[in-house]
Amino acid sequence: MNVSELGEFGLIDLLAEIACEGQDRQADPWRQLMVGIGDDAAAWHSDASIELATVDSLIQGVHFTLDTITWNELGWKALAIGLSDIAAMGGMPKYILVSLGLPGHTEVEDVTDLYRGIMELGQQFGVAIVGGDTSSAPLITINTTILGSTSGQAKKILTRSAARAGHKIAVTGSLGRAAAGLEVLTKQMKLEPEASASLRQAFLRPNPRVTEGQILVEQGVEAAIDISDGLISDLSHICQASKVGARIEVDLVPIHPAVKDNFGDKSLEMALSGGEDYELLFIASDEVIDRVRKVAPCPITVIGEVVADDMCRVTLIDRQGGPFKAARTGWQHFTTKS
Amino acid sequence: MNVSELGEFGLIDLLAEIACEGQDRQADPWRQLMVGIGDDAAAWHSDASIELATVDSLIQGVHFTLDTITWNELGWKALAIGLSDIAAMGGMPKYILVSLGLPGHTEVEDVTDLYRGIMELGQQFGVAIVGGDTSSAPLITINTTILGSTSGQAKKILTRSAARAGHKIAVTGSLGRAAAGLEVLTKQMKLEPEASASLRQAFLRPNPRVTEGQILVEQGVEAAIDISDGLISDLSHICQASKVGARIEVDLVPIHPAVKDNFGDKSLEMALSGGEDYELLFIASDEVIDRVRKVAPCPITVIGEVVADDMCRVTLIDRQGGPFKAARTGWQHFTTKS
Repeated sequence: MNVSELGEFGLIDLLAEIACEGQDRQADPWRQLMVGIGDDAAAWHSDASIELATVDSLIQGVHFTLDTITWNELGWKALAIGLSDIAAMGGMPKYILVSLGLPGHTEVEDVTDLYRGIMELGQQFGVAIVGGDTSSAPLITINTTILGSTSGQAKKILTRSAARAGHKIAVTGSLGRAAAGLEVLTKQMKLEPEASASLRQAFLRPNPRVTEGQILVEQGVEAAIDISDGLISDLSHICQASKVGARIEVDLVPIHPAVKDNFGDKSLEMALSGGEDYELLFIASDEVIDRVRKVAPCPITVIGEVVADDMCRVTLIDRQGGPFKAARTGWQHFTTKS
Repeated sequence: MNVSELGEFGLIDLLAEIACEGQDRQADPWRQLMVGIGDDAAAWHSDASIELATVDSLIQGVHFTLDTITWNELGWKALAIGLSDIAAMGGMPKYILVSLGLPGHTEVEDVTDLYRGIMELGQQFGVAIVGGDTSSAPLITINTTILGSTSGQAKKILTRSAARAGHKIAVTGSLGRAAAGLEVLTKQMKLEPEASASLRQAFLRPNPRVTEGQILVEQGVEAAIDISDGLISDLSHICQASKVGARIEVDLVPIHPAVKDNFGDKSLEMALSGGEDYELLFIASDEVIDRVRKVAPCPITVIGEVVADDMCRVTLIDRQGGPFKAARTGWQHFTTKS
């Protein structure tokens, strides 16, 4: 079997199993480990806090092309993806290592633009680029490692495996902007300037919810993930890790107005499965969600609830609680384990 | 200017400068930082120890081809390179994150072999693979992040910038094996089986000097680097970081017997500039080196001394202390700043 037949998530599950084979569980690293492969970031105990680490890669032609993104934006985005993983654990980012593969003909100015893009975002959180690796490569590869920890006295994190039946599902901000932005860029759509800028920005320079992630932990939330693959896909990860099901009331999903106004019927699909919005999806009791809403600097919207379901499915429902009837073909895969 | 004109080390220097531009030095990550870009690993203070992080990449067609290395060996080597960086800081490795780019047609079995190769080496040090990233890519890319820390009560590390004039230069083990091994593999040379196996092994499954790195710190060594680019090149990094010069007495360089026996005149070049031996090069007083020699599990050889030299040059000398006369053209570049 080859890796495209097995699929990314199947491969990750398999590698996670191998990583645990025949290990000496008494060794310090294993004893201190809280969360290994399969969450947004790895987490382990240190004396004063919980340490976090995540790595993400962007490969030219797979994750980006230079037709639609500048080097500066590419740097920003490379970091945003990793910061969002740290945010989804409720952590504070601290250090970055950047590994670059570059064709020899790459202009030095482009590489410095990339670095400045990383730092424009990094400075918002006081993080430092402390290392990396540069190497010749036939195409551009950017690998970003982010190290963080729980902030202040908190020794708690958010995980994918802590969702409980009966709790509500909520999201920060609104969804669909990044998918719409990609379409604006690739199809060179002409929209009203403000909407166009907002959508492009969402795709090119996403703002990871680092502050919000810390607020979630402080207010008692335990389960979260960032929306990188798409709302339904990421909620499926939570369901599988927590061994629960999820029901999303489709009408409650907060679609960004610029998406709704410009993409009509397609806007719901963009919000449900577009991905790359880097909002946080979290699970908590009504009471905890109310507390979060009072202090969060962004809208918090309840979109459904967690249910006991051995199949770990995400189900879409309409306002009456019946199964959501998809307007388009291709929708049914959302209701199956993805 | 493009990156191949500027060169790897020029690019790293430039990026290191940019990483420091306009930073808030009062932010915690900056206050705690000991060593940023430009050493074998980044280092920062935590409450109980010094934390270390390093990242390395292997790109198909640039760093390896599948004609000369198996997937299992590739995994071992990917980890060995990073462990050697932690060793060169005198640290103990703890956690690994592996980011893989893979063509869709890659066999799952090959990827699991790669992972098992990583773990065969990792288990020797009790390290845990705790995260990573998998993604589709037109060629194989392997990015390995290693996190470590100083062991036990030691709050000291080895750096490139701590070499002092008057101190001696020493190396662990012997040199030239990896370069010879690469030649055996690519030219399909037929040597006596034991020599052939030893040389191939050095290139394909190098043994990072993790234990020895910790011994160096414990015995009071302060300056070290691992020999990845080649003895002269890596010693040049020390000279530049420490603002000193270095004189190597060529006859003292420990060339591995299997290299000497099979590569004649070429063996010295392999030992001086072959690279990938992953031995440790360190600088200390005679007294400290004697202490290291008493407890190290491998040979320790003094090969020269550090001198005051504003040009930060590495100079090769013969037994009489005169300039070493190169037997081959192409040698003189070793005497200049590389």
